[in-house]
Amino acid sequence: MFTTFRGGQSGGWKVTSVARIKGETLPKVAALSVIASEAIALPLLPSQTSWRLAGVLSHLRYTETAEKEQLAAAQAGLGRPEATHAALIPIRKSAEWWELTQDERRKIFEDKSQHIAGTVKYLPAIARQLYHSRDLGVPFDFLTWFEFSPEHVPLFDELVGMLRATEEWAYVEREVDVRVIRED
Amino acid sequence: MFTTFRGGQSGGWKVTSVARIKGETLPKVAALSVIASEAIALPLLPSQTSWRLAGVLSHLRYTETAEKEQLAAAQAGLGRPEATHAALIPIRKSAEWWELTQDERRKIFEDKSQHIAGTVKYLPAIARQLYHSRDLGVPFDFLTWFEFSPEHVPLFDELVGMLRATEEWAYVEREVDVRVIRED
Repeated sequence: MFTTFRGGQSGGWKVTSVARIKGETLPKVAALSVIASEAIALPLLPSQTSWRLAGVLSHLRYTETAEKEQLAAAQAGLGRPEATHAALIPIRKSAEWWELTQDERRKIFEDKSQHIAGTVKYLPAIARQLYHSRDLGVPFDFLTWFEFSPEHVPLFDELVGMLRATEEWAYVEREVDVRVIRED
Repeated sequence: MFTTFRGGQSGGWKVTSVARIKGETLPKVAALSVIASEAIALPLLPSQTSWRLAGVLSHLRYTETAEKEQLAAAQAGLGRPEATHAALIPIRKSAEWWELTQDERRKIFEDKSQHIAGTVKYLPAIARQLYHSRDLGVPFDFLTWFEFSPEHVPLFDELVGMLRATEEWAYVEREVDVRVIRED
């Protein structure tokens, strides 16, 4: 039920870069592990040489019925053999965002920022999974994990560049971009 | 940030009843404590003689702007001296509910069940606070805490009776109704 991303000395994914996008970054580590578990111990505090970020698979927050069907038809699952590149992007949004009501957030998310409509064209090349961490006392609200093949690295850069230019992104107050390559 | 409801031998609230409404009940305990904390240890497992349920104050999930303003104008806060009666109602909804999309859930929540419009008339007599626990690995999705004065007990019974007759309530698979009175 919970997924923990552990940055440290060893793990199934080799870290190629840890980039500060907005706010405080995370310590650069050598490797990343992705661990599924039924329970987690909170709080998860980062140290200077390692960090753990936990999230949970949760229900859809903004997606409407037609969009869910469109995404289901287009998307790829995690774990494809050719998807040897991945990215972990933890994000925290501002208090201002969370004080908005559901209709106000949905309007910014989709009507103005096209978070769903604008990203469908990156499927199935980019597989992604969103984990929620806001209610877990973690210093981020979301952990998004993306997997893609080496030739789709430029496409992934385009995707995150597009998202960072939206009105929705103005509400992001912390974002780190961790790139990894699968260990053989 | 987190609030833990601990049922056990002692606490600030005397338990007058623990009623099974749907699904498995909770063990009957003598007293209830309400504890705020910055961190919780998970999982929180019930024993035969005590239980702990943790939730988190989170953002609004369905409320729209006009509704938020209407509620803000009508509602009372917790801790009123005259509100010596209270109820803790933990609820879990079905997997079917959580697989619905946001628009489908909102339609059942408000258009069909009038969860907001139908409950405004119980304000400010009944003060309430919703805590989210679904993402915490707790066996309930929500913990709702209600406070009211002794003369409003029948009004509170009417409120929960009304909610249990809605279409939304068909998606509830577990509900326990814990009534308490403040210790002098």
